[in-house]
Amino acid sequence: MGIYTVKRQVSWGDCDPAGILYTPRVFDYCTQTIEGWYTEVVKVDWMTMIRNKQGSPTVHASCDYLKPMEPGLEVAVTLRIDKLGDTSMTFRLEGEDEGGAIYFRAKYVSCVIDFTRNQAMEIPADWRSKIQAYMSKCAAQGDCPHPI
Amino acid sequence: MGIYTVKRQVSWGDCDPAGILYTPRVFDYCTQTIEGWYTEVVKVDWMTMIRNKQGSPTVHASCDYLKPMEPGLEVAVTLRIDKLGDTSMTFRLEGEDEGGAIYFRAKYVSCVIDFTRNQAMEIPADWRSKIQAYMSKCAAQGDCPHPI
Amino acid sequence: MGIYTVKRQVSWGDCDPAGILYTPRVFDYCTQTIEGWYTEVVKVDWMTMIRNKQGSPTVHASCDYLKPMEPGLEVAVTLRIDKLGDTSMTFRLEGEDEGGAIYFRAKYVSCVIDFTRNQAMEIPADWRSKIQAYMSKCAAQGDCPHPI
Amino acid sequence: MGIYTVKRQVSWGDCDPAGILYTPRVFDYCTQTIEGWYTEVVKVDWMTMIRNKQGSPTVHASCDYLKPMEPGLEVAVTLRIDKLGDTSMTFRLEGEDEGGAIYFRAKYVSCVIDFTRNQAMEIPADWRSKIQAYMSKCAAQGDCPHPI
Repeated sequence: MGIYTVKRQVSWGDCDPAGILYTPRVFDYCTQTIEGWYTEVVKVDWMTMIRNKQGSPTVHASCDYLKPMEPGLEVAVTLRIDKLGDTSMTFRLEGEDEGGAIYFRAKYVSCVIDFTRNQAMEIPADWRSKIQAYMSKCAAQGDCPHPI
Repeated sequence: MGIYTVKRQVSWGDCDPAGILYTPRVFDYCTQTIEGWYTEVVKVDWMTMIRNKQGSPTVHASCDYLKPMEPGLEVAVTLRIDKLGDTSMTFRLEGEDEGGAIYFRAKYVSCVIDFTRNQAMEIPADWRSKIQAYMSKCAAQGDCPHPI
Repeated sequence: MGIYTVKRQVSWGDCDPAGILYTPRVFDYCTQTIEGWYTEVVKVDWMTMIRNKQGSPTVHASCDYLKPMEPGLEVAVTLRIDKLGDTSMTFRLEGEDEGGAIYFRAKYVSCVIDFTRNQAMEIPADWRSKIQAYMSKCAAQGDCPHPI
Repeated sequence: MGIYTVKRQVSWGDCDPAGILYTPRVFDYCTQTIEGWYTEVVKVDWMTMIRNKQGSPTVHASCDYLKPMEPGLEVAVTLRIDKLGDTSMTFRLEGEDEGGAIYFRAKYVSCVIDFTRNQAMEIPADWRSKIQAYMSKCAAQGDCPHPI
C-alpha cells in the first residue's frame, strides 16, 4: 500500500494509424488514475462530490511523452503529490513498464470548487489529513516531491 | 432544409493501427448526429432536458459497417425516423460520401424518460408535432421509412 | 479458466452529463474484450495480425442497454461465441455485476480479412481449433449459444 | 485565410457528469486542429506521412483550462506557431467563443521523425517554407508569437 498505482494495458483502440498511443489518450489514463486515487485514498468519489455541490476540476494538465507506447504494453501509472496548497494540489503521474522504463510523465493542477458559489474552496480538513498521510507514505519510500 | 445531415471528416485519432475507423467511433458520429437533430429539429437540447428531469437514453444501438473508413474521408451522416412510438422512436443513420457510397447504416432506439419517477413517459406533444413534420418532410423527398 | 471475462469499472469520463454511461462507450468495453480474447484465447494479437496483412474487422455491432451504468460500477464483461462460420464469427458480450444483474448485451459479427487481396479469408485452422476448444469449454459450463 | 481556425461545438458526450468538458477531451480538439492544419497549410496529411515512413509525434502537450466548457458551446480553435526549430515546432492552440472569451490555451511540441531510422529528422524544406509563410501571415495580423 505504497504509491497509488493503476495498471493499464494499452489497447488497440487507444492507438492511431502510426501504431502508437494517440496523443490525447494519455490524459484518459491520467485522469482515471486521479479518479481512482480520490476514491481509494481520499475516500471521496467524484459522484458524491458533485452531489455535495463540490468538484475538483483540472486547471492545468501537461505531459511529456518520453517513449512511444504500442498496443499490448502494460504500464503502471503512479500518482504522487508534488504540491498541496490551500485550495489546489499538483499531481505527478508517470507511466512505467515492468523494467522501470518511463513512457510518460504528466502534471495536473486541480482545484477544489464549491459549486453553490462557483468559487475555489479550501480543501476540506478530512481530505487534507488523508492526503498528507499519503504524501508521508510516499516520502517514507524515499520519494521526494519535485516539479516537472 | 430536408433530411438532417451532419458532415464529419474522419480524423486520424478516430482510426486504429489498421488505418481505418475504430469500430466504436461510428457510434460517436451517430450519437452526436442525434444530439444535433434534437437541438435543431425538435428544438430541445439534452442539457435542458436533463435540467427538466427528462432524458432520452438509448435502449438499442446497432451498426452495419459497409465500407472501411479512412482518415480524411468526408461523410455526410443523415438521420431519418423509421418509427415513432408513444414513448420511443427509432432512428436510422447513414454515412455516405459525396458520390453516394454508403459506409455505414446504424439504428438507434431511444425512449423518453421522466427521471422524477424513473419511468418511460409519453413523447411530449410539442416534440411529437415537430418530429411528425420532420418525417413528412423526409417522406416528401421520396424517402420511405424502412427497418434495417 | 472458463468463460473469458474482463472486469471493468465504469469511469467518470465514460459517463455523460446525465451521470450514466455515454451510449458509444459500451462498444469500447466490448471491442477491448474481444481484443483481449484474441490475445489470450486465440493466441494472436491484432498488431501481429496486421503485420501479417490480416485483420478481423467488425461488420456488425449492436447492443441492448438493459440497465443504466453509473461511475464506479464494476461490470464483468463476458465473451461467448454464438456462431463460428468459415470466414466470420459472432460474439455475444454481456456486462454483469457481482449480483448477476445484466447491464448490457452486445453482439459483434467479425470477419477475417486477407489485406493482400482485400478479401475475406477462411479462419486459419490453428485459430479455429482454439476457438472450438473455447466453445466446448463454455458449453461444458452449461452455456448454450443463442442469438440475441 | 488568416490564422488557421477550426470551429467545434462541445458535444454532450465530450462532457462528464459535472456537465462540463471532460479534461482529456480538449486534447482531442487540439490534436485534430493540428491534423487539419498539416493538411490545409503544410499540404501533407498524416496518412501520407506514415506511408512515407515519416511522422510528427507529440513530445509535449499542455493545457490551461481557463473557463469551463458546457455542451452546445461553440469554440473557434486557433493555431499559431510559437517556435519553428530544425526538427521540431511549438504550437499554441486557443479556444475562444464568438465574444472573444478564451476557454483554453494549449501548447504542443511536435518533432518530425524518420521511421526508417527512428530518429528526428530536419523539417523538409518544402514544409518549412509553407510554415514560414503561415507564420508571416499570422504576424501580419499583429499576432506575435509568445510562449505560454
